[in-house]
Amino acid sequence: MLLLLSDYGWHDPYVGQLKTVLATLAPDVAVIDLLHALPDFNPHAGAHLLAALCRDLPVGAVVLAVVDPGVGGPREAAVLEVAGRYFVGPDNGLLSLLAGRAHSSRVWHIHWRPEGLSATFHGRDLFAPIAASIASGRFPDDKLTPVAGLRVQFDTAELARILYIDHYGNAWTGIRGGGLVEPGSYLEVQGLALPWRGVFMEAGKGEAFWYVNSSGLIEVAVNRGSAALRLGLKLGDPVGLPQTPGSHHH
Amino acid sequence: MLLLLSDYGWHDPYVGQLKTVLATLAPDVAVIDLLHALPDFNPHAGAHLLAALCRDLPVGAVVLAVVDPGVGGPREAAVLEVAGRYFVGPDNGLLSLLAGRAHSSRVWHIHWRPEGLSATFHGRDLFAPIAASIASGRFPDDKLTPVAGLRVQFDTAELARILYIDHYGNAWTGIRGGGLVEPGSYLEVQGLALPWRGVFMEAGKGEAFWYVNSSGLIEVAVNRGSAALRLGLKLGDPVGLPQTPGSHHH
Amino acid sequence: MLLLLSDYGWHDPYVGQLKTVLATLAPDVAVIDLLHALPDFNPHAGAHLLAALCRDLPVGAVVLAVVDPGVGGPREAAVLEVAGRYFVGPDNGLLSLLAGRAHSSRVWHIHWRPEGLSATFHGRDLFAPIAASIASGRFPDDKLTPVAGLRVQFDTAELARILYIDHYGNAWTGIRGGGLVEPGSYLEVQGLALPWRGVFMEAGKGEAFWYVNSSGLIEVAVNRGSAALRLGLKLGDPVGLPQTPGSHHH
Repeated sequence: MLLLLSDYGWHDPYVGQLKTVLATLAPDVAVIDLLHALPDFNPHAGAHLLAALCRDLPVGAVVLAVVDPGVGGPREAAVLEVAGRYFVGPDNGLLSLLAGRAHSSRVWHIHWRPEGLSATFHGRDLFAPIAASIASGRFPDDKLTPVAGLRVQFDTAELARILYIDHYGNAWTGIRGGGLVEPGSYLEVQGLALPWRGVFMEAGKGEAFWYVNSSGLIEVAVNRGSAALRLGLKLGDPVGLPQTPGSHHH
Repeated sequence: MLLLLSDYGWHDPYVGQLKTVLATLAPDVAVIDLLHALPDFNPHAGAHLLAALCRDLPVGAVVLAVVDPGVGGPREAAVLEVAGRYFVGPDNGLLSLLAGRAHSSRVWHIHWRPEGLSATFHGRDLFAPIAASIASGRFPDDKLTPVAGLRVQFDTAELARILYIDHYGNAWTGIRGGGLVEPGSYLEVQGLALPWRGVFMEAGKGEAFWYVNSSGLIEVAVNRGSAALRLGLKLGDPVGLPQTPGSHHH
Repeated sequence: MLLLLSDYGWHDPYVGQLKTVLATLAPDVAVIDLLHALPDFNPHAGAHLLAALCRDLPVGAVVLAVVDPGVGGPREAAVLEVAGRYFVGPDNGLLSLLAGRAHSSRVWHIHWRPEGLSATFHGRDLFAPIAASIASGRFPDDKLTPVAGLRVQFDTAELARILYIDHYGNAWTGIRGGGLVEPGSYLEVQGLALPWRGVFMEAGKGEAFWYVNSSGLIEVAVNRGSAALRLGLKLGDPVGLPQTPGSHHH
């Protein structure tokens, strides 16, 4: 199984061009588009989303992840292995939350440069052939150099910002929900203290609330409406951490 | 063959997360995205579109259909069988046009609840495993309870409203075209009496008209332009039924 | 391998309906969505994009290409073969850049008309079955008539206009980059003389520049920003050809 995450967008030809390479080199591998709307040019936000979206993959899964504003520059290309899952992408921090939060991991840099490598589309020309090899069961040792770790490593703590807004208008944060959820806690967003609701049905129609979404992240939502429109949210906006009522007095 | 229809949107990770489950449980089944732009939160409009889009499926096809604003609440989860095609989704009316218009059908409720079922993403956690089983030829009798019929059943009559607007700006109604088409009939939309044209080429450039689209529904269109922009149409707007000229005098 | 290019859009059900036919008739063929955002109703722009996007396909690849505002009218339906690659679509110019730039090619018209052919969706009803046959290794001689060439043939010269704007805001032209790139040359766009940069990293943050993109076309871009917004570009806008500094004095 080969999963794709990128900021390539759905409408553009980039995903299809990359898949043409995969279909040629690894015709028997199932390719799944997980997300092509990672925030443009932003490996930091992408790293947090990638870590959340890839927490439950089956062993042997290969992930091709690309947010690569430095393509063609000096940044390295990397392969990361965590618990039998493989991640292929730029060494610009994008893979570093996965690495930094893992008990153990292995990292390689890709020293191979294919003939006809474009200066601006390494997803198609460099990462796709490497990912296709791994997903086909042929680990490309001859194209990789083992290294001690990723060159760029972001802070692994929660990121208390809006990282993604879905088409309903739900706003994902970079705060993982495990253990934080307590009935009665609230989340400060745009100066408002939003209540927690377990499911959309428990909120009044049009009520804004927060909950832990199905990818394990704290999300700001409105029942049958758009939280982004209702609260004026945009990518990068800061949010608070969940607080129990009166907890600031403790 | 397993077809997906939902209001999950293309840009978001929900479709990919659902497909990761399908690829794990039913790796040999072809998965086809039929439509992920069913109107948000609106099982009623979705039911009419689903019935139109699924009228010609091959026997044995399985459809996973989700528009599920009540997820996590008391609504039941259902499997519907009509003439050898299977439909898996919430029992909130979404599947009910298919059931209500069929000569005969069978219905089951899904009593199974998997470990780790999320409160908000039953498409991935509940419907996908059931659909994967059926599409793989293993009907999950142990997870289903036969019932007399769907709990929520919408009126099966034509829905004389705009239900979908495509990216060209063509506006689909919930009125089936069979038998209604008569040269010379017109359709009242926003106070205008639009003429019928058989194909886009027969309309003048920029002319608004109606025709029976390739899914069997009456559609409002403009040749080489956007009917939605030209006529100011939005989802839910009422339209008339086709009328022969002078028919209101009969 | 069967590749799809169209103006059907991603959000709408048309691609999924076409794929349902392909999955029924050619279940073992890999289907790849290359681009469904070809400019609406515009075979001329589509022809230039198609030629660029299909220049490196493996032998045996089949391309189903549809931009078909004249569907249901007198335009012919065609199959084009160039160097062992097959292209299926309307004979309205869309395939003609591929044909006109090839050393040699073969063309057939599709005389077959299937039962139940819709008047408005030949992609699903006519082109998909033909493409499925070819991709499955069964060339449908009985449904095709060899002809001397395409009926509609566009000028094969470079098209110095904006033909596509991607979601980053990068603007593709119809000018091929081979041989034109010279350090120091500039491109006139909206009255500005944009410099050439080899990769995004070489441009200052927010700087507008041009380069030869990974599909071989000259593209106008902004490092970590949107060229379309920055320069006010829209589809069809004229651009210059690359000029060396002072070349207008020669």
